Amino acid sequence: MPKKIALLGSTGSIGTQTLDVISRFPGEFRIEVLTAGTNIRLLAQQAEKYLPDSVVIGDSLHYQQLKEALKDLPVKVYAGDEAIEQVVRGSNIDLVVAAMVGYSGLKPTISAIKAGKKIALANKETLVVAGEIIKKLIRESGSKIIPVDSEHSAIFQCLAGESGNPVEKITLTASGGPFLNFTKEMLKDVKPHEALKHPNWEMGNKVTIDSASLMNKGLEVIEARWLFDLLPEQIKVIIHTQSIVHSFVHFADGSVKAQLGVPDMRIPILYALSYPDRLASDLPKLDLSKCPTLSFSEPDPLRFRNLSLAYEALRQGGNMPCIMNASNEVAVSAFLSGKIGFLQMSDVVEFTMEKTEYFASPGLGFLETSNARARTIAQNYINELCKKS
Amino acid sequence: MPKKIALLGSTGSIGTQTLDVISRFPGEFRIEVLTAGTNIRLLAQQAEKYLPDSVVIGDSLHYQQLKEALKDLPVKVYAGDEAIEQVVRGSNIDLVVAAMVGYSGLKPTISAIKAGKKIALANKETLVVAGEIIKKLIRESGSKIIPVDSEHSAIFQCLAGESGNPVEKITLTASGGPFLNFTKEMLKDVKPHEALKHPNWEMGNKVTIDSASLMNKGLEVIEARWLFDLLPEQIKVIIHTQSIVHSFVHFADGSVKAQLGVPDMRIPILYALSYPDRLASDLPKLDLSKCPTLSFSEPDPLRFRNLSLAYEALRQGGNMPCIMNASNEVAVSAFLSGKIGFLQMSDVVEFTMEKTEYFASPGLGFLETSNARARTIAQNYINELCKKS
Repeated sequence: MPKKIALLGSTGSIGTQTLDVISRFPGEFRIEVLTAGTNIRLLAQQAEKYLPDSVVIGDSLHYQQLKEALKDLPVKVYAGDEAIEQVVRGSNIDLVVAAMVGYSGLKPTISAIKAGKKIALANKETLVVAGEIIKKLIRESGSKIIPVDSEHSAIFQCLAGESGNPVEKITLTASGGPFLNFTKEMLKDVKPHEALKHPNWEMGNKVTIDSASLMNKGLEVIEARWLFDLLPEQIKVIIHTQSIVHSFVHFADGSVKAQLGVPDMRIPILYALSYPDRLASDLPKLDLSKCPTLSFSEPDPLRFRNLSLAYEALRQGGNMPCIMNASNEVAVSAFLSGKIGFLQMSDVVEFTMEKTEYFASPGLGFLETSNARARTIAQNYINELCKKS
Repeated sequence: MPKKIALLGSTGSIGTQTLDVISRFPGEFRIEVLTAGTNIRLLAQQAEKYLPDSVVIGDSLHYQQLKEALKDLPVKVYAGDEAIEQVVRGSNIDLVVAAMVGYSGLKPTISAIKAGKKIALANKETLVVAGEIIKKLIRESGSKIIPVDSEHSAIFQCLAGESGNPVEKITLTASGGPFLNFTKEMLKDVKPHEALKHPNWEMGNKVTIDSASLMNKGLEVIEARWLFDLLPEQIKVIIHTQSIVHSFVHFADGSVKAQLGVPDMRIPILYALSYPDRLASDLPKLDLSKCPTLSFSEPDPLRFRNLSLAYEALRQGGNMPCIMNASNEVAVSAFLSGKIGFLQMSDVVEFTMEKTEYFASPGLGFLETSNARARTIAQNYINELCKKS
């Protein structure tokens, strides 16, 4: 029996790569649900190819057009966020791939967790914003999260068979992005198109900018805290420009385990889909004899402040990671549209973290408010910055 | 209840390091048996410190002297190989650490396996010489082998939690020894004291010479075949001069796992002792921020023929690995005493592999004969070489 998959965010970078992987194993997986935010054209093509039970378009404005495009196919068509929350709970779903980008991924993921589904989690914001709540929901529902991110997948894989064994710390690797050796002066003048050229990984725009600013690694540190139940000081980051080692687990006996591979997201995606099994694949393989030398160095917190801001948010806890994440989404968007400079993204995040009301034990409703509030504060601050310049 | 240990070869390099590890965890382990070949002085000291139930000296000539040295202690004293085979079967033993060097380690290890004991295996020759027989005995008795060698320990650790998952291949790392970049001309004139300086690891003389000649890696390839049930072509060797990555497992889905650590044998020894648990220790830890760049390159089969000879022995199977191992022990000894040159060790092994009678399915008795026969042929060939020069 093939594993039945709901793929949320099927038209994004992780979504399309997930479909690439799935098409390599027709007997192993079957697409039951596809959802996308606005890209109806690609969503319709995917529906034609994979013939899912249902498709959902997040933006209801596109419903009629999508319905029309799929009118000759045996595919149910829905629209709106609530429809997404509903389809992931279906009894026909074994695994939900949560591949939406940004805060909007939170609610459908929570819906799937509440229904006790297994989740292949690529959406960072779920755990960053609501880690504590999510952990509690998982305990209650018996759901399980399998991380998709290459770094967390690496840690997850290295922890297989090590249940109960003492972990001293983990080290997440960071490519350092395209600006690793830029001075502060140079960083000031970086343009969006330069930041969108990641040296090793193919990813969506938001993640690529976060990679260049190290905010991506900051978000991953917070995610790792919840995925692996670690203290902030047990989570380290190291610059590894070759992106071959995807992360390390340091056991308390002195042994270190690492997971490696060519930088190709389809490998951790496949693992998340097939877990706890592995499937033999023809995805690109690491050839050690052609492998570059592997180097490791400490990140520079002075030039890349986002990493320090993320640790600060993690230490404070409560709604602070939510505030950080919201302001960063706004800042990245402002940077991409040329409104603010590269280094100003950290200014926006720092300002918003200081100015938004802190709450130590927020419920989901309060997080929603914090998210909206932080966005307004960040946006206002950006408007001020624009006026000045 | 502490785990009760029989330590065979307690005065050698692995033996003394095992005691170092055990002394760090007084509540976890208890030494029940210590055995040594000839070094009664150190054996007596160890007996005084660890107060085992029994000690055995392999060489019966030393029995009286050892008995006298321990006369005031509540420790039973035995001598001879048969006594070693007997004590490892005792009901007071949970784990046998097989740390004897060379062919002589085979019989007591077999005895422990027959008794269904768990074995922490550091003796390479056991599996090299009699891998097929050992595997059969393990199936019958329910014994289990936990490898101690850093490379095999690495593979074993990377396979934890991966039961049934498809492995494409494994890669054993090799430091390349002190002569990695020597030309053939330079290798000809290498002296024993130069070969005894290993760049990274502290080991006994035999293993250090085998490291310099890559025969050590050849023996490990054969061991790996039996430990992990792999085909010869699934076992690769890569030169990694930093000795930080101890080996790799390449899964068929494109994921690669590695185990890393500072080059300190006490780390894999501790793992073999504590397996399946890990114990928090103050053994030296890997600091990635101070880690050198890690490099990997293919070994050169023209300068280091032993590796090719080992693959050849593995492919032929039967008594050929036994012949290879026996002739190499004789060759190393001749090199250490200055009788033959560094490159001539491979000549001796190659000649002996050609001239000793091949048998495809030898029993233990026939292996014993092959071992003796190969030693004679190797020794005669060495005598010829000495006459010529």
